[in-house]
Amino acid sequence: MTKKLIAKPLIKQIYADLKTEIIDNGFAPKLVIILIGEDPAAEYYVQNLVKKGKKVGIEVTTKLFNVDITQTQLLTEIEKLNSDANVHGVMLQKPLPKHLDESEIVMKINPQKDVDGFHPLNVGNLVLDREGFIPSTPNAVLEILKYYEIETSGKNIVVIGRSDIVGKPMANLLLRKNETGNATVTVCHSRTQNLSAIIKQAEIVIAAIGNPLFVKADMLKDGAIVIDVGVNQIEDAKKGYRYVGDVEYEASFDKVSAITPVPGGVGSVTTAMLLKNVLKAYKLLHG
Amino acid sequence: MTKKLIAKPLIKQIYADLKTEIIDNGFAPKLVIILIGEDPAAEYYVQNLVKKGKKVGIEVTTKLFNVDITQTQLLTEIEKLNSDANVHGVMLQKPLPKHLDESEIVMKINPQKDVDGFHPLNVGNLVLDREGFIPSTPNAVLEILKYYEIETSGKNIVVIGRSDIVGKPMANLLLRKNETGNATVTVCHSRTQNLSAIIKQAEIVIAAIGNPLFVKADMLKDGAIVIDVGVNQIEDAKKGYRYVGDVEYEASFDKVSAITPVPGGVGSVTTAMLLKNVLKAYKLLHG
Repeated sequence: MTKKLIAKPLIKQIYADLKTEIIDNGFAPKLVIILIGEDPAAEYYVQNLVKKGKKVGIEVTTKLFNVDITQTQLLTEIEKLNSDANVHGVMLQKPLPKHLDESEIVMKINPQKDVDGFHPLNVGNLVLDREGFIPSTPNAVLEILKYYEIETSGKNIVVIGRSDIVGKPMANLLLRKNETGNATVTVCHSRTQNLSAIIKQAEIVIAAIGNPLFVKADMLKDGAIVIDVGVNQIEDAKKGYRYVGDVEYEASFDKVSAITPVPGGVGSVTTAMLLKNVLKAYKLLHG
Repeated sequence: MTKKLIAKPLIKQIYADLKTEIIDNGFAPKLVIILIGEDPAAEYYVQNLVKKGKKVGIEVTTKLFNVDITQTQLLTEIEKLNSDANVHGVMLQKPLPKHLDESEIVMKINPQKDVDGFHPLNVGNLVLDREGFIPSTPNAVLEILKYYEIETSGKNIVVIGRSDIVGKPMANLLLRKNETGNATVTVCHSRTQNLSAIIKQAEIVIAAIGNPLFVKADMLKDGAIVIDVGVNQIEDAKKGYRYVGDVEYEASFDKVSAITPVPGGVGSVTTAMLLKNVLKAYKLLHG
């Protein structure tokens, strides 16, 4: 088995497939990202999406609003995007300013354009294994499991983290009756007692806590497979800062049978999965 | 702690509260159950619902269709019920005849009248802890946990079974950040390896397999709490048949710290939770 589960070969394949399908069919998929207020991190993320989209033939544009936009104004803007036949995916950059009701806004996005997979209808479709949009991060994990042929059936998989966008959808996906499912799934979180003992029994650990290097090498079972979803910025003496995952990568490397690096692991696949969802939305809209 | 977690005292309370609220406010909630073809078991279940509903002031009626009803006809009938302001809850008795597309039919029921909580929108709402309908069986389990003041926070809870109507919603509910949530949840099923070892570590076991007496006393941890969702009919030398749960009740009784009986446990609370959902639907529709 490959030990270092790097994103590069699989995203190369995904981007190549996307490009071919879009060009061969003359598709013109378009994603609109709603940005509220200025946020350098969000803008960096969006620039990356624009660049990646361009490579494969997906137009990615932003709609920037002032931080004082009202709930009603924002709902009206989303309605416009919902009814615009040239827009196939609509994404809302978070976090939103406090005066906005996020729950109502997420509900407003047409589920068929909800490429983030955050609308409750898509969450329900995910749980019930119905057609719908799967959030990019857990979808990226499935893609890695598939690409590296990691068996999940009957395996003890521990998911650390119960967020709406990673932990919970991840757990539900791993319970599906398919090639990346059929796992015995345990979900741990901040309230979990004896976390170390539970992680120790995991054949596969999926860390999605957002806490730098939280999972130590000695917590892992020998030969475990580690999928590290965390992307955390920490101080670095030389470079000022650098990115690390939720798991001690170097210290764990000799102990595990496979592990995703950070950066260059799950995070890199996430963008590809989002663009894949935009193409899917395009095909939904155009039959 | 009470050892025998019987439904009686809590359903007595629920029915009394329902009755008071309905009479005091002059409410007239109505549930319509769609029955397709004749099925003695379904009719028995419905008769029980009619009786229980009558006691608290909820009208329960059935719409019986022939087994050869077409998909289009059934969808039209559901549309009528959706737009009937005097109908607050719509339930579809399963299983459906094979020629019908269950998935499309479930989607057709107005989510605001979906008192079963099977519509993907309600499933998503459940996962995201948004307002919506929770399926009666997992809701009954929560009610028992609450009534008997069983602490779930940080506890290892093993859910056996991953069905759409019990196992999966149960697991998601136990992850919520509230008084019956915050648990470390493991979901086991037919593909689980070392099931006995996993059950052995559970402080709370929720059995929802539908397999008579599948969980043996010696699989349980000493002092575990057992919530038995199974209601299985087995042969009985004297009575012809009797009902048992998924767990060996008698053999486990001395070992556990608490256990729900079958019958008289979860199953009895389920009907009460369904009627509670009908009242909720009534209040939704009438503001």
